[in-house]
Amino acid sequence: MSSSPIKYELIHKDKHSGARRGRIHTPRGIIETPVFMPVGTNATVKTLTNKMIRELGSEIILGNAFHLFLRPGLEIMKEFGGIHNFMNWDRPLLTDSGGFQVFSLKDRKITEDGVKFRSPLDGSKIMMTPEKSMEIQQIIGSDIAMAFDECVDANSEYEYFKESVERTYRWAKRSYDAHNKKEQALFGIFQGGLFDDLREKSLEQITSIPFDGYAIGGLAVGEKYQDSEKILKKFGNKMPENKPRYIMGIGSPTMMILSVENGMDMFDCVLPTRMGRHGTALTWKGKLNIKAAKNKFSKDPIEKDCKCYTCRNHTRGYLNHLFKRNENTGKTLLSIHNLHFNITFVKKMREAIENDAFLDFKKEFFENSDYPLEN
Amino acid sequence: MSSSPIKYELIHKDKHSGARRGRIHTPRGIIETPVFMPVGTNATVKTLTNKMIRELGSEIILGNAFHLFLRPGLEIMKEFGGIHNFMNWDRPLLTDSGGFQVFSLKDRKITEDGVKFRSPLDGSKIMMTPEKSMEIQQIIGSDIAMAFDECVDANSEYEYFKESVERTYRWAKRSYDAHNKKEQALFGIFQGGLFDDLREKSLEQITSIPFDGYAIGGLAVGEKYQDSEKILKKFGNKMPENKPRYIMGIGSPTMMILSVENGMDMFDCVLPTRMGRHGTALTWKGKLNIKAAKNKFSKDPIEKDCKCYTCRNHTRGYLNHLFKRNENTGKTLLSIHNLHFNITFVKKMREAIENDAFLDFKKEFFENSDYPLEN
Ligand SMILES: [Zn+2]
Ligand SMILES: [Zn+2]
Repeated sequence: MSSSPIKYELIHKDKHSGARRGRIHTPRGIIETPVFMPVGTNATVKTLTNKMIRELGSEIILGNAFHLFLRPGLEIMKEFGGIHNFMNWDRPLLTDSGGFQVFSLKDRKITEDGVKFRSPLDGSKIMMTPEKSMEIQQIIGSDIAMAFDECVDANSEYEYFKESVERTYRWAKRSYDAHNKKEQALFGIFQGGLFDDLREKSLEQITSIPFDGYAIGGLAVGEKYQDSEKILKKFGNKMPENKPRYIMGIGSPTMMILSVENGMDMFDCVLPTRMGRHGTALTWKGKLNIKAAKNKFSKDPIEKDCKCYTCRNHTRGYLNHLFKRNENTGKTLLSIHNLHFNITFVKKMREAIENDAFLDFKKEFFENSDYPLEN
Repeated sequence: MSSSPIKYELIHKDKHSGARRGRIHTPRGIIETPVFMPVGTNATVKTLTNKMIRELGSEIILGNAFHLFLRPGLEIMKEFGGIHNFMNWDRPLLTDSGGFQVFSLKDRKITEDGVKFRSPLDGSKIMMTPEKSMEIQQIIGSDIAMAFDECVDANSEYEYFKESVERTYRWAKRSYDAHNKKEQALFGIFQGGLFDDLREKSLEQITSIPFDGYAIGGLAVGEKYQDSEKILKKFGNKMPENKPRYIMGIGSPTMMILSVENGMDMFDCVLPTRMGRHGTALTWKGKLNIKAAKNKFSKDPIEKDCKCYTCRNHTRGYLNHLFKRNENTGKTLLSIHNLHFNITFVKKMREAIENDAFLDFKKEFFENSDYPLEN
């Protein structure tokens, strides 16, 4: 077993919940956890410059292997020596395996070897396998790569999930074996849908492989809040304690709280930037539609006391105008605020955990805001 | 005659051309001339934040009275106490009179009183007059307002231009009389198309009114380069020497050189930002289509030695990718470079004038670049 390029340091466990405060040491810097990772699908966080992302204090961002594989493509990634050089980002970057996007395509065909699909670019046939995903992510050169797993349609039957858990295990082993980039960490993903026995089984199987971290897959894919809650409560803190724990695709305040309460360290989501581009601001009171008529004359910032560039410089009235005129500057400004919100949100969770006050934080947050306790 | 809120200081006249180096003192800061003014039509320079504009070193930007009058509208402008507060811009800002946009509309009707047109927003009938334009610009609160003049279709007959010059004179007087905002400068505009006698007449008429600066109107509206050259050569340095001289709507290197060579101090143009949004970079060698296949693998910046944020941080290959993916970040990055180019361009012209070397600058620029000597 090779030594891990990253190291998880557990700093403190909240006395009254499953939340934990930690630190991931990577060759490109330290990541304080729990951490929210902005999504930079196409080697850029939409509407923002790297400088803005750095000023927001992001310690890690996420890139999508599938998108980067299609464009700019591996040739370019090789030529530039990986995504960090390509986009000039010197902090940690995590790539997903590309599985989620491939499984979302129509006409994809799953075999033991992998998934066959047609390129959305030119219709050419492509075979994505664990080995191919490792190759792609290694060429991209992310700091953390993800094992290639099957993303099962949430409406599938128990029998299908059962089969898929086994396949995901075989693919995980193949991912692990194919991975040979020493300076890149590799995380395994356990699956099993909403079935306790399958989750149990998958967790056991995946954690039997000495990955550098583990992710819980197949949640936040349209299931009910209560269902994800059930799985997270049961399995979150059963994940290895000495490795980072990642839940993919979540980023709403409600889901971040649920995840952290149940021992998760890392999450990513397009939500803050997507909402920002569409004119919705996240505040400590709730969501704010900047396009609403009531904001037209408002000289208030999106949020009083918010330290983000947008709130320090601009009013709701001005932002309302920019959105009415469909100015990209408005999208940039709201994305800045929303990322600042999420990044501040995890910071406050970290402080609360350090003070054994995570449940107080949770209680106060929901008392003072409109966010749903369950979503 | 009231004292002017701005003061033009002539620093040096180039010994071998009509170029001049000056400084406009305004209550919101000093503007070194010749100056290029980025255009912020809707109270934002497209795809950029104010911070970026400040970092680029812009000493003044332009806003469009007509657009701001429609949206956000005068009620908002009043409520916020003017555009500087509204957009949080603390340096000088110039507004055009709105005339150019009104005259571009279909179905506008010109009378002695002004121009009647239908609002592009809701079809309501609006009458734009010199008095109305002054009211709008005073409420917007720009540092420099423009008199309301008639923008004549370049294909009109001599007789029409002749009439129009007289009307523009009457409108200029009405603009001057209606203007009563002491801290706002007001510039007059002379017209006359490509007819020497009408230009002569109009210049005499307009400069008989003690405006705080003067603009040459009706150029860069689709006429031949030789025609604008002829007018500029003849009338540029006939404009009053103790006031700023402004040529509207130009910003290409060729036109900036022609204008400065003939005594102009100020110009504005959407060209650098519009080109930037469409993937064309301005360089000292010529225009560069960042979307061209040859840039795909390029690790060079847009321009070596360029000090802009984009060139210090990103390669042509990366920018090519952003444009292929239609990422707004690419538009922002190219707009930054192009504005930096234009701002550096006028800086170099200023230095050249100080050294009596404007014609050397011109010669070298055209020798080392693909820009047309005439355009
Ligand atoms: Zn904010
Ligand atoms: Zn540059």
